[in-house]
Amino acid sequence: MTPAELHHLDRQVVGWLDESRKRIRAAMAAPVCVQTKSGRNDLVTNVDKANQRFLVSRITAAYPTARIEGEEGSAAKVSTLAGRVFFVDPIDGTMNFVKQQAYFAVMIGVYEDGQPVYGAILDVMRDEVITGGPQLPLTQNGVPLPLVPDRALADGLLGVNAPMVINNRFNLGQVALASAGPRMTGSAGMEFLAIAQGQQVGYVSYLQPWDVAAGMAFGQAFGLQVTRPDGSPVDLLTPGVVVAAMPRAHAEILARLTSDTFVRR
Amino acid sequence: MTPAELHHLDRQVVGWLDESRKRIRAAMAAPVCVQTKSGRNDLVTNVDKANQRFLVSRITAAYPTARIEGEEGSAAKVSTLAGRVFFVDPIDGTMNFVKQQAYFAVMIGVYEDGQPVYGAILDVMRDEVITGGPQLPLTQNGVPLPLVPDRALADGLLGVNAPMVINNRFNLGQVALASAGPRMTGSAGMEFLAIAQGQQVGYVSYLQPWDVAAGMAFGQAFGLQVTRPDGSPVDLLTPGVVVAAMPRAHAEILARLTSDTFVRR
Repeated sequence: MTPAELHHLDRQVVGWLDESRKRIRAAMAAPVCVQTKSGRNDLVTNVDKANQRFLVSRITAAYPTARIEGEEGSAAKVSTLAGRVFFVDPIDGTMNFVKQQAYFAVMIGVYEDGQPVYGAILDVMRDEVITGGPQLPLTQNGVPLPLVPDRALADGLLGVNAPMVINNRFNLGQVALASAGPRMTGSAGMEFLAIAQGQQVGYVSYLQPWDVAAGMAFGQAFGLQVTRPDGSPVDLLTPGVVVAAMPRAHAEILARLTSDTFVRR
Repeated sequence: MTPAELHHLDRQVVGWLDESRKRIRAAMAAPVCVQTKSGRNDLVTNVDKANQRFLVSRITAAYPTARIEGEEGSAAKVSTLAGRVFFVDPIDGTMNFVKQQAYFAVMIGVYEDGQPVYGAILDVMRDEVITGGPQLPLTQNGVPLPLVPDRALADGLLGVNAPMVINNRFNLGQVALASAGPRMTGSAGMEFLAIAQGQQVGYVSYLQPWDVAAGMAFGQAFGLQVTRPDGSPVDLLTPGVVVAAMPRAHAEILARLTSDTFVRR
């Protein structure tokens, strides 16, 4: 994308997210229909589905040749990363949406031939949207964000996945205790926002492609390292364990993680 | 206290907390001086200390015969619960205050002869204050809160203490996985607010008296059960493990906790 195309994309996506926010908040006034997916704590609601339909329709109208990978099924399944791909999470943190009416996000990540181009994450209830990419500076609601500090692990809060940390998979429980404090929010989007805002030094979890695509893309604007536990690149065709952290903490986390055979959250 | 005295106390405390909020937010504009206490993740700042001095001065002026137990030392140490005692936490979640500039609380709990009378917790950055007690309905910013649902553990989010859950003390790791999702916020005050707002079904942690006093007192307005892991009452003279949860979840948590010799967080 040219710089002009990238800025145009940014304005479009921010507009779509603003409309998503209004639609979601309006939908919260009525009873929400909750269904389980892979297990009792993997939820989807009518609001997730409606917002995915809305975002897919907007993306398709604006970028008819792009492919779309979305959390809630209706989007076409992506089997290669060739060309332009939009990753869409219409509500990230659906459990929080259902139980807390807070702490959930909408995420859009754009990739070209597997390379990150653009990421946008909206905290719906706080009306904070952060966007950025390798060629686009990090901004929150259009205002440039300060440099994200590159803290040591012991000096930063670390977001962690609950089952992984409780079962000490990859030694993550001990890694968490080596930080300034582990935090569990229940939303990957909220974790990436916290890192971009300098509130948290990293995040380790088992993530689907749409959970990581936006944060990994905007992370390129501020040096965020996003890899598998062995340091290899994250492949957006498959789910897996992701270590997202600022460089110093990322190196410390990788050095402390042990190999493991963890497959599924 | 008579009902009139109780309402007067409520208006006073809400006023002090509002002034605390303004003072803390003003202090955040300048560099904050951070010191460690018992360990590298046990922090205190000049803002904690200044807010404790402020609250102690207000309490002493209004209730000269009351005794005060505060987190930050300057208050007189309480050795019995006879008479009227104010428990003060000037900033609960100091690590969050330092790292995140969000997710911290100010808490005041009032007890008479060891019995809860009144509790107030302020979320400083969201400007939300919840107050209540056994004889005072639960309100948020003066507006009555809806009935807190009495959910099963599997149907509610559970706040947990990080080292306890990672080390599976009392079997808490497995209890957390039996919930709809464990959450770690790093602030007892934020956890009690989430329970009062119906966002979370309970909270298990190792707490000091000033961490639990306010939430245990306002919890009496909505049936919150607050005990030690063996079901015995919480004694506000000593720190220890606290199980705070709505009745159904409280019973389920106690049934799943094992005995343990855990002493210190």
